[in-house]
Amino acid sequence: MNDLSLMRRLATAGQTKILLVVMDGVGGLPKTPGGPTELEAARTPNLDSLAARSICGMGTPVAPGITPGSGPGHLSLFGYDPLHYEIGRGVLEALGIGFDLQPDDLAARGNFCTIDGRTGLITDRRAGRIPTEVGARLCEELRRIELPGVKTFVEVVKEYRFVLVLRGEGLADGLTETDPQQVGKPPLPVEPLRPEASRAAGLLNQWLAEARQRLSDEPQANGCNLRGIAKDPGLPKLSEVCKLRCGAIATYPMDRGVAQLAGMKVLPTGETLESEIDTLRRHWADHDFFFFHVKKTDSRGEDGDFDAKVAVIEHFDAVLPDILALNPDVVVVTGDHSTPAALKVHSWHELPVLLWSRAVRPDGVRQFGERPCMDGGLGHIHHTDLLPLAMANALRLAKFGA
Amino acid sequence: MNDLSLMRRLATAGQTKILLVVMDGVGGLPKTPGGPTELEAARTPNLDSLAARSICGMGTPVAPGITPGSGPGHLSLFGYDPLHYEIGRGVLEALGIGFDLQPDDLAARGNFCTIDGRTGLITDRRAGRIPTEVGARLCEELRRIELPGVKTFVEVVKEYRFVLVLRGEGLADGLTETDPQQVGKPPLPVEPLRPEASRAAGLLNQWLAEARQRLSDEPQANGCNLRGIAKDPGLPKLSEVCKLRCGAIATYPMDRGVAQLAGMKVLPTGETLESEIDTLRRHWADHDFFFFHVKKTDSRGEDGDFDAKVAVIEHFDAVLPDILALNPDVVVVTGDHSTPAALKVHSWHELPVLLWSRAVRPDGVRQFGERPCMDGGLGHIHHTDLLPLAMANALRLAKFGA
Repeated sequence: MNDLSLMRRLATAGQTKILLVVMDGVGGLPKTPGGPTELEAARTPNLDSLAARSICGMGTPVAPGITPGSGPGHLSLFGYDPLHYEIGRGVLEALGIGFDLQPDDLAARGNFCTIDGRTGLITDRRAGRIPTEVGARLCEELRRIELPGVKTFVEVVKEYRFVLVLRGEGLADGLTETDPQQVGKPPLPVEPLRPEASRAAGLLNQWLAEARQRLSDEPQANGCNLRGIAKDPGLPKLSEVCKLRCGAIATYPMDRGVAQLAGMKVLPTGETLESEIDTLRRHWADHDFFFFHVKKTDSRGEDGDFDAKVAVIEHFDAVLPDILALNPDVVVVTGDHSTPAALKVHSWHELPVLLWSRAVRPDGVRQFGERPCMDGGLGHIHHTDLLPLAMANALRLAKFGA
Repeated sequence: MNDLSLMRRLATAGQTKILLVVMDGVGGLPKTPGGPTELEAARTPNLDSLAARSICGMGTPVAPGITPGSGPGHLSLFGYDPLHYEIGRGVLEALGIGFDLQPDDLAARGNFCTIDGRTGLITDRRAGRIPTEVGARLCEELRRIELPGVKTFVEVVKEYRFVLVLRGEGLADGLTETDPQQVGKPPLPVEPLRPEASRAAGLLNQWLAEARQRLSDEPQANGCNLRGIAKDPGLPKLSEVCKLRCGAIATYPMDRGVAQLAGMKVLPTGETLESEIDTLRRHWADHDFFFFHVKKTDSRGEDGDFDAKVAVIEHFDAVLPDILALNPDVVVVTGDHSTPAALKVHSWHELPVLLWSRAVRPDGVRQFGERPCMDGGLGHIHHTDLLPLAMANALRLAKFGA
């Protein structure tokens, strides 16, 4: 059910509480052939006990074979078809550094690059991967560029990457990128894909011309490209569509940002799981949908550290009883994508899913792991179906038709 | 395969016979944690034996998490995507009381309500849930209203609910409801959503004005609202699309009505399962698709009576051999939605499905129940796929492409 209009039509307000636990990148792979995945290797008596009382299955965030970024991975769990609701790269990059993006801001991902001074052709699209300190100094230089009628923000991300944000009235998106995607070609101008975007295109080209001048003496980063120039997509708000008062508890800016785009209230919290649970407890009465994010499963997966990822999962399992003690009416536990330590990156693999409520029809799954969940009663589902299922189990969806 | 055009293109006439058994609301939930569902608790040697020779699975009538009404639940089993083919509430209400709705009739569900005589604002949208006898008397009064050029019918449903039907030429649907959906507001006028509907809107508003006068002395039901004003949606007829001669055997008006909308011939039958089987036997030669409806599984589920629902299932199991003795070529057994006794209402849970023919590829399922069917060879399917599968198993679908 990717159709938010159906949710909008059937959702009813209520007092029941839904808890969505997202263990970022939790899906894994065996370290050795025939061995357990990270989740299967972890000692998780509490998750296993919950799984035994739940209906389980395997979930696909976007489509079979598609590896999701954090944006689409979370959108899908929040009920938005990520192929229909795309968040521009510039917006995600801005959210990822915790930039306080406004609804009318135009955000672009910037890449410093090396340009041959004689021919004007790009010789290195990443400017020799300059250190972050150099990038930071150059961003400071670029902040001096002034444009008529708009405010500009330039924020360093990492190494050769930065974020450019234009703030002002009437900045439409629908703009081409400047990166020709290969060396030996010159940067392209920004071009409007629709008439309303002409002014923004003009301003960005003016900014790029001045950036080129200000960077001209740099040995490596003497040019830059803008990519994924976009605005807040203006998603239908989950709070309105589902008549849920949504609170988000997450430690990383990107995940907090996506939750905010979906219409959740981002709750202040600390860096640890314990701090997140404390936040959950303090705000328990104020919301009826909680997005609870566990970041480090993904981080340790990206490190390629199987055992460290196992330890993060075991840590979460140990605190799960504190969460369940709050008596949620519906609990969903899954991930936004897989990040097998064996691959060190996000992957396309399905995610184990667990759905608990007093009204679920339990299956035979007794352990929360990839292989046990393959036999689960939910079968293979799309992640966008989880929110409607959670709503149904919270008895918050009216009957369709008489 | 929700696309009826593909069915229309590939269906071939033939002599094989398909039997679709719909145990209304058969899907259930355990009475106690870890216990069996109603279907699993029932002693069903004949269904189990059939399941062992069948391919089984779990079916979704509308979409994950969506609780279907009887209309959408049956449409899906008849091959129509219920999100695409919607039947208006007025039409379903008319069918539900066995009203002989004509293709051009405009039908509305009516609700008596209480209106504050001084302010004109609704104070009770259900008129204090007046007894059915009072509703019947008021319907008689409302039958006296005459409209120019159309015939009107006013039929009591139950308590504060009634059906209004306008019969005449050129009555288009596409009309707003009058119920403001909350107390403290006045009834709204009927407004046309398209120009063709203007005449119908005018007639309905004239009817409402006179109804208001005629009800003005009533202490509780001194007003009324009209909802779901609609016409027969004009579904493509199953008989034409699938080249099937379709007969429907059902004891309840609503289910008979939906079958009729789908182009089936509704066969006269009695109230009992034995009488339905007798009807099936007598008409066996005349049709090659039979919709055989078992109502009481739903009724006992809505009563919240687990054991009585088990008894209805066991009763059906006991007469199943009489049905199979007719030698159908394809048998499908499932429900139109779940009605767990534990919830006492329709629910969103998947339905166990069994498909038998001489050409099925049997799986390992040995018992017809929710948990066994979770492991079935059909996997998790959409109910709209059942009719094409039945057609294929009846060897009545031509090859697609060369």
